Amino acid sequence: MIPGIRFAGIASGIKDTSLDLGLVVFDDPAYITAVYTKNKVKAAHILYNKKLHGNTVKAILVNSGCANACTGPEGVGDLKALSEKLSSHLHVADGGIVFASTGVIGRRLPTDTMVKALPALVKDLRKNGVESFSQAIMTTDTYPKIVRATVKGKKEYTIIGVAKGAGMINPLLATMLVFIFTDYPVSPETVRRKFLQGAKESFERITVDGECSTNDSVMLFTRQGTEDPGCIDAFFDQLFSVMKELAMMIVRDGEGATRVIHITVKGAQKKDMAEKIARRIAISPLTKTAFFGCDPNWGRIIAAVGDANVPVQPAKVEIILQGELLAKNGMEVPFDEDKVKKLMNKKELELIVNLHDGTGSYDIYTTDLTFDYVKINASYRS
Amino acid sequence: MIPGIRFAGIASGIKDTSLDLGLVVFDDPAYITAVYTKNKVKAAHILYNKKLHGNTVKAILVNSGCANACTGPEGVGDLKALSEKLSSHLHVADGGIVFASTGVIGRRLPTDTMVKALPALVKDLRKNGVESFSQAIMTTDTYPKIVRATVKGKKEYTIIGVAKGAGMINPLLATMLVFIFTDYPVSPETVRRKFLQGAKESFERITVDGECSTNDSVMLFTRQGTEDPGCIDAFFDQLFSVMKELAMMIVRDGEGATRVIHITVKGAQKKDMAEKIARRIAISPLTKTAFFGCDPNWGRIIAAVGDANVPVQPAKVEIILQGELLAKNGMEVPFDEDKVKKLMNKKELELIVNLHDGTGSYDIYTTDLTFDYVKINASYRS
Repeated sequence: MIPGIRFAGIASGIKDTSLDLGLVVFDDPAYITAVYTKNKVKAAHILYNKKLHGNTVKAILVNSGCANACTGPEGVGDLKALSEKLSSHLHVADGGIVFASTGVIGRRLPTDTMVKALPALVKDLRKNGVESFSQAIMTTDTYPKIVRATVKGKKEYTIIGVAKGAGMINPLLATMLVFIFTDYPVSPETVRRKFLQGAKESFERITVDGECSTNDSVMLFTRQGTEDPGCIDAFFDQLFSVMKELAMMIVRDGEGATRVIHITVKGAQKKDMAEKIARRIAISPLTKTAFFGCDPNWGRIIAAVGDANVPVQPAKVEIILQGELLAKNGMEVPFDEDKVKKLMNKKELELIVNLHDGTGSYDIYTTDLTFDYVKINASYRS
Repeated sequence: MIPGIRFAGIASGIKDTSLDLGLVVFDDPAYITAVYTKNKVKAAHILYNKKLHGNTVKAILVNSGCANACTGPEGVGDLKALSEKLSSHLHVADGGIVFASTGVIGRRLPTDTMVKALPALVKDLRKNGVESFSQAIMTTDTYPKIVRATVKGKKEYTIIGVAKGAGMINPLLATMLVFIFTDYPVSPETVRRKFLQGAKESFERITVDGECSTNDSVMLFTRQGTEDPGCIDAFFDQLFSVMKELAMMIVRDGEGATRVIHITVKGAQKKDMAEKIARRIAISPLTKTAFFGCDPNWGRIIAAVGDANVPVQPAKVEIILQGELLAKNGMEVPFDEDKVKKLMNKKELELIVNLHDGTGSYDIYTTDLTFDYVKINASYRS
């Protein structure tokens, strides 16, 4: 619980009977710091929220079941209308309400349904309502994602992070919605650079399917007031660990995934070369299916390395999977295939690709590619 | 049949009991023109063959079941040894033999097994042996791929193209092996530019899984002698149509694929922008699973458009699938979903994305992403 912040989550009828509408109200308006998708096609809530940045916000309304993306000026207009209605129910002047949506692209929000649900939603507001809120923003997620942390300064501050995301996940970013709340008083100016760095080290280091969504949003809400400087480093430490943990919860819940693979590329001439290679391996369907099948098929990994559009010296490449050396100097070394297969039959795998060509390194988390990914996505809308 | 060219294909024991070793012998040494993978990691046969270019070749030995990639200098040495043995069996001086391999990366060729099989292979050489040859080069292919064409000049010339490829298929290029034989006398100098153009318009316009292999090779063998200038245009027309048809046979046999989707992006500011967007859609797993599920989920298509790292104006985008308008001005238009679902339940689909922002266009063929793709690739080696 965070003093002055109330949460709600109800089934409004946007989807079927599951929770689909979430609300967070800030009794004292909060600063917002946010990063949004780099997709050129952006959802209405992103276009709308950006206009409000620099102001404080009183509330955020989040829905699942409809992305409100590719809905034109009408989609943004729907948010204006919802802002007016919600303000009235909250007995505040209109303005300072932000939004987030997730779900099917191309459909208008069912505003009538949503407006009808507002009284029940406002009534549901509770300081301990974050579980309902976290459930209301789920789509193909198999579990709600909440991370809590505390920071000790003049008083004890709390950080609560809530996320949704399972498919269309690729760094920079993907269908993930992340909301982080805190009562630590810090201005957006102070927090912005650190926040972007935190996002780079967390949400931009995971991928499920290489897809970048129209709706991705990571938002941090901080309190107005005088900073507590004695614990600002501790605050950022805790903020980073909340972001990292939420990112890990998202990738572990990757659509259909049975394993998470931590890919580290090192020994590159430069860090950005290591990053390109790590990302190329992380989205390779042949590598991801091999991980699903517990197949130590390092040939597919080295083929992805060579296809990253980065100069590499194949004859120097070393590949280590689950601590077992599979290839050295670009060639296979004898290894016990049955043993490695067994070592691969785990939920979390460690892959190290060493290029032995410099000191640049980068790491990223990805999932395996499974029957269930195909099943979920061949039938998502029906 | 082409006079002076003999084909063979046998089960040598590299794989199990299926055909795995193919040979083509040119009674008069032929010119070779070839393009190879752009992957930085290249198979031994590519490193070996490149040294021979500019010379004429007497034969090509092709195996499936082992890619002979990432096998170091030893992998190239194995080909030297095979060249010597095969020359002796063919009663020719050593040299002028080229190779191609496909199969698992990282394993050395079983040269003892192969050398033992050479007498039977040479004995199997026949002018009408192209069917056996085409079967010997298959891996996950579900059918052999042969295309024939003729050109009338002073005499009638024949073109025979043989291909293998089903997975690790992405333009520029992928695990495809393509061999084109002709008795039309044309020098590599004359043919090279045209051949590269033909490859761009055929094998570089298909993708199955966005993977670029270490072994891709497209080779054209032409006869020495005086050109027959009266039919050179007809020859290139036929050559292009053989290349295009082989490319289509490969994409239709995409691993696990149930449909081929012809994606046309038009109205781009420039052709290369249209190409980037077309390629981005073609490798999008969410779009490919939607095609598998007959889901007219145009939101995933426009999300891929926006993620192609190309400037686009979302509010101008139009999407037409199987002749049905799904989205206009970046927004959904009412359409009969059941009707479109039925229209999608076909083996070949037409998708048009019009950016309404210029005159650049590009088209490419891709497959759907299915349970069987995962099944094939989660268990390929075992």
